[in-house]
Amino acid sequence: MLTPVAARVARTQVRALARTPIRSFHMRPTRPNNTSSVVLKAVAIGALGVAASLSLAMQGSCGEGIVECDTQKNPTSGLTKLSNKPDVSNLDPSILDNAQVPMRKRMETYVKLLQSRIVGAIAQEENASDSEGQPAEFLVETWERKEGGEGTSCVLQDGRVFEKAGINVSVVYGQLPPAAIRQMSADHSGLVERIGYKTEGPDAEVDGMPFFATGISIVIHPRNPFAPTSHMNYRYFELAHPKTLKDGSPNPRYSEQPAAWWFGGGADLTPMYLFEEDARHFHKTLKNAVDKEDPAFYPAWKKWCDKYFWLTHRKESRGVGGVFFDDLTMPSITKYSSTFIPVCDGEIHPNKVIISEKPHDRESLFRTVRALGDAFVESYIPLVHLRKNTPYTDINQEWQRLRRGRYVEFNLVYDRGTKFGLMTPGARMESILMSLPLHARWEYMDGITGTGRENSSAALRAKARDEAKHTAEELQAREALQTVLEQPVDWL
Amino acid sequence: MLTPVAARVARTQVRALARTPIRSFHMRPTRPNNTSSVVLKAVAIGALGVAASLSLAMQGSCGEGIVECDTQKNPTSGLTKLSNKPDVSNLDPSILDNAQVPMRKRMETYVKLLQSRIVGAIAQEENASDSEGQPAEFLVETWERKEGGEGTSCVLQDGRVFEKAGINVSVVYGQLPPAAIRQMSADHSGLVERIGYKTEGPDAEVDGMPFFATGISIVIHPRNPFAPTSHMNYRYFELAHPKTLKDGSPNPRYSEQPAAWWFGGGADLTPMYLFEEDARHFHKTLKNAVDKEDPAFYPAWKKWCDKYFWLTHRKESRGVGGVFFDDLTMPSITKYSSTFIPVCDGEIHPNKVIISEKPHDRESLFRTVRALGDAFVESYIPLVHLRKNTPYTDINQEWQRLRRGRYVEFNLVYDRGTKFGLMTPGARMESILMSLPLHARWEYMDGITGTGRENSSAALRAKARDEAKHTAEELQAREALQTVLEQPVDWL
Repeated sequence: MLTPVAARVARTQVRALARTPIRSFHMRPTRPNNTSSVVLKAVAIGALGVAASLSLAMQGSCGEGIVECDTQKNPTSGLTKLSNKPDVSNLDPSILDNAQVPMRKRMETYVKLLQSRIVGAIAQEENASDSEGQPAEFLVETWERKEGGEGTSCVLQDGRVFEKAGINVSVVYGQLPPAAIRQMSADHSGLVERIGYKTEGPDAEVDGMPFFATGISIVIHPRNPFAPTSHMNYRYFELAHPKTLKDGSPNPRYSEQPAAWWFGGGADLTPMYLFEEDARHFHKTLKNAVDKEDPAFYPAWKKWCDKYFWLTHRKESRGVGGVFFDDLTMPSITKYSSTFIPVCDGEIHPNKVIISEKPHDRESLFRTVRALGDAFVESYIPLVHLRKNTPYTDINQEWQRLRRGRYVEFNLVYDRGTKFGLMTPGARMESILMSLPLHARWEYMDGITGTGRENSSAALRAKARDEAKHTAEELQAREALQTVLEQPVDWL
Repeated sequence: MLTPVAARVARTQVRALARTPIRSFHMRPTRPNNTSSVVLKAVAIGALGVAASLSLAMQGSCGEGIVECDTQKNPTSGLTKLSNKPDVSNLDPSILDNAQVPMRKRMETYVKLLQSRIVGAIAQEENASDSEGQPAEFLVETWERKEGGEGTSCVLQDGRVFEKAGINVSVVYGQLPPAAIRQMSADHSGLVERIGYKTEGPDAEVDGMPFFATGISIVIHPRNPFAPTSHMNYRYFELAHPKTLKDGSPNPRYSEQPAAWWFGGGADLTPMYLFEEDARHFHKTLKNAVDKEDPAFYPAWKKWCDKYFWLTHRKESRGVGGVFFDDLTMPSITKYSSTFIPVCDGEIHPNKVIISEKPHDRESLFRTVRALGDAFVESYIPLVHLRKNTPYTDINQEWQRLRRGRYVEFNLVYDRGTKFGLMTPGARMESILMSLPLHARWEYMDGITGTGRENSSAALRAKARDEAKHTAEELQAREALQTVLEQPVDWL
């Protein structure tokens, strides 16, 4: 089922690429027998906290004494090995559908294969352009985290199609200290209480819990002002039972099964000029992908996305939305006995909960995440392909850079992953900050976007200046975008 | 006493302006009799919190239903009145030195006169330029805050000398709720405990305390990459005794004298290219200004400044420093009996305290703040004057914009005033965000500034690219700046 945008994309090689699944990435209709109701766990707004933050932030987190990775080390320099595509030759795609393999390994394999696929799709778009100049190449750098884990950052910068495109994966593990567990207990409603260890005080049973996180994180800023920016992130998080208690004795509850696990993630679109068909294509592609698993997912996660990517101080959204979710897990490891999907940001309220009638288990949730991850190329790359050669002016670029400034504001002020990452000693800052655009602009009291402009003579003057400087078409286009940013709409 | 930079500034009219004090702004050597030891109060790092934040953030804070200011209202449109310079015709400079007038009125008058003077100095530099094109004019807009107070924002944007220059003043008052008082109690060590009201729980005596804050806040980004950016902010904060207690009965402790008051502020310099003589001139001018009041001030506040403007995630400073202080008040309204100046960020530690031997009172502290405020034009404008016509290339501008990106990072991620302001409903966002530059740039793993670049092949490649693209002189200049940002130095 192609949306109008997809249908307009003529170049077959791009379409072929966009639709090629990674081997074994197909949906499997069969489910294991141990299905049970899914709980999409609830959390208080603004307080997803450490767990989500950790799992977001761990994208790119590494030790300060980085780069001791034998397979990637450059023997002549001692530096990381640099290439232009990630190495996936040692990955086994067959484990993706093998429920006997630990989920951490399957998710790690999945995000690495997905990274490779997306890097390929981006590189292909960069290479095929009407623009002059040489295409830019990805810088692909693999790093190690001394406390445990590794990652690969793939960044293409200052290209002819892409201003900046970053595709990071990471696999991070270690010990979560009591303070972080406490914050998780407070924020991830019930998820840690259910585990039930006393972690603090004189009678603390454990002095921390082992954790594991893996994920993929993407931000793509095309050069053409008519091509939208997009962000995508999917992650998996586990808390494990410690082998020994704080006093050194064996932990009677120890098991190789995780004490808790959950998925989180989402994807959203940020156009500078509004093409409704682009927004619909993006949303429709994501909806189609998750509807196969549960038609209750998209409506809930679309609302959650609108709420998450809201710039409170600007009273506008970062873009035209997409999907967003966190704490996607099973009731057996939470305090909730009922099945529900929080409408947005996990608020627990009878009127704000959607009951899902589908049985779920970890396999179905993993399939859901993979369906979304697999859909990213198809949801987004055709939009870049369609817009990348549209002629544009300095005026268009100026507007693009102003909108980029808002993107910077969101990421530095609100985004939990970025904020937590910046505060994490030893995190790989360049990977975290690859989300920032190459160029951004801030105008004081802009006539179209200025906060409080309704009552401002300065904004009125800016508006008059713009009316003299720009065409009516340009101003209408800017207003059209601003309108949907200030009042998010349902695209489907 | 002129520094080498000042001596090099030949144009007499600029020098004359820079050194002209506002009438009655002279230092007064006489002190009232009721002197006592000064306490520069201590606060925990990262937790100056609401009080400092409020007083910072209130620069520009206003109600949503703004602009009901009779004197400034434009009768034809209902919008704010717009002009190109602030109106100071109704201010009485003689009260600055009159200890019988409430400090809130004196400080308000001071910051408004200072705003007018600085706007004049900036406008004069903008007008006198070798550059082509018309000079830009200030947009001067006065707003009201529906909860109490008003302010004037003066912004010059996209000029030929200044990329953006914002000079805001505000006068804000109202009721500080118990939660905010609690945060002040926790953060402003002892300042609120000393006041001694029970503000929460079933036996709370008061349901909040009246507050008053006034201040001036400035950020100036010149266009020329060789001219430094500067920021300055001075503020005065009061907490008052409520007239009635929570149960409606008269407050026996009520007095027209404030329950607590303090000054805060500072000024710092952010060059894109290092001219050591500029940094020395800036520091020397500020040091000369405060040495008259107490030679213990500058060394303590210089260190505090280096600590405050530190980008932890980048492991570099925002610039070459200046002075920074907060909670500048008297021992009688704190829990401390001894006289001390915290070395930096108010840490209370025997080895981190400087004993001041000078007697102080509110008059001497106000003189200190005025001395610093008065010194701003002389500390900074000659540097713009000296560098504004230096020829520069696109390469220089690219570096400037990359450095501007770090400025954005500091302001959005760390700056307490900005962060608190963004979270304050009804705050005038455009005034708060006038600190952001017109243009900024982010490069992934830049070879000179990239975080973790020592171990990165991507940074090595960027460095090689830069070596092919730039002159050795350019690269040395960038490295010279980066070195002092990563290891702040004493300029005097």
